[in-house]
Amino acid sequence: MHYPTTIQNLIECFKKIPGVGEKTAERYSLALLDLDQEVIDLFSKSIENTKKKIKKCSICNNLTEDKICDICKNKKRDKKLLCVVEDPKSIILFEKLGTFNGYYHVINGLISPLDGVNPEDIDLDKLISRIDKDEIKEVILAVKPSIEGETTSLYISKLLKNKDVIVSKIAHGVPLGTEIDYVDSLTLSLALENRKEVTEDN
Amino acid sequence: MHYPTTIQNLIECFKKIPGVGEKTAERYSLALLDLDQEVIDLFSKSIENTKKKIKKCSICNNLTEDKICDICKNKKRDKKLLCVVEDPKSIILFEKLGTFNGYYHVINGLISPLDGVNPEDIDLDKLISRIDKDEIKEVILAVKPSIEGETTSLYISKLLKNKDVIVSKIAHGVPLGTEIDYVDSLTLSLALENRKEVTEDN
Repeated sequence: MHYPTTIQNLIECFKKIPGVGEKTAERYSLALLDLDQEVIDLFSKSIENTKKKIKKCSICNNLTEDKICDICKNKKRDKKLLCVVEDPKSIILFEKLGTFNGYYHVINGLISPLDGVNPEDIDLDKLISRIDKDEIKEVILAVKPSIEGETTSLYISKLLKNKDVIVSKIAHGVPLGTEIDYVDSLTLSLALENRKEVTEDN
Repeated sequence: MHYPTTIQNLIECFKKIPGVGEKTAERYSLALLDLDQEVIDLFSKSIENTKKKIKKCSICNNLTEDKICDICKNKKRDKKLLCVVEDPKSIILFEKLGTFNGYYHVINGLISPLDGVNPEDIDLDKLISRIDKDEIKEVILAVKPSIEGETTSLYISKLLKNKDVIVSKIAHGVPLGTEIDYVDSLTLSLALENRKEVTEDN
């Protein structure tokens, strides 16, 4: 005894999403039966469109339905600042802050020799040629603070060493509102190392 | 700045599934971009088909793509036994055991006056008329061991009181392989109450 074919297929499809197991896929599939017809139509259509409509921006690799994404289209931003991120999701996070006014570049992955991801496997050529071409003054590396992230940051900063560009990376330390007891030791040692003098300004 | 429309729509659709929040919906939507075209096609098609193809079995309310589900179609099962379950998912669980050979009846919900679900809101009429019509000798109540489940079981057993049918319910107690310390007190008191004499047979 199995579910009807349509439900079986749905379960299999949900299971293809990383992190979704058998039980969750089953629950999601059955939940779809209770959704309104219009949601079902939009859901089905949107999934169909992901492959058809979503492309990578030809300049920065961000997700877009056009050739160039909305951020790269915006000529009012600061051309001198380029924030390098791992994936398009990070762009949304930074944009929600509303404090960064430069442009972005998505490298789609991090160098991870243990997983067989070498520098040539991530999209660095496009980044370098963009930096050569545009009037970028500062490259801000904003990747995950992991071994892979640090390796990638180091590699990019070496590639840019002889170019007329400042390479910086976002600060790591104790997040606000956290009990110090719960912060991992690597973060805590980074926080200690990168300590800042307390002045009357802050 | 937002995601492209297709991704935005996908996120909204995923959020309609109970238990899926903003972050998870976002992660799922982005993960779809990495799936193969054939999975995407099947996914989209299956979602489209849920409303079109999936129906309730006209006899037992199980999910089916035909008028009558595979279990009700099977004439080799034991007509005398009817297992009453809350939803079609329970049928799959019991069928996986492979030890129950009777038929099922899905009541689609439990009586829960606090949530405004009264006996007339769940599908009990169909169950009662089925018991009257078929040659059922025993009705096994296999619903969730909660207040709602107990209320529903009690209500059904009252409805069947004057009929020539045995009403039983599945046993509740300490699950196998569990440390007794971790079992809640209600389960433990039920386990104590329903104790069984140890004989040489078991």
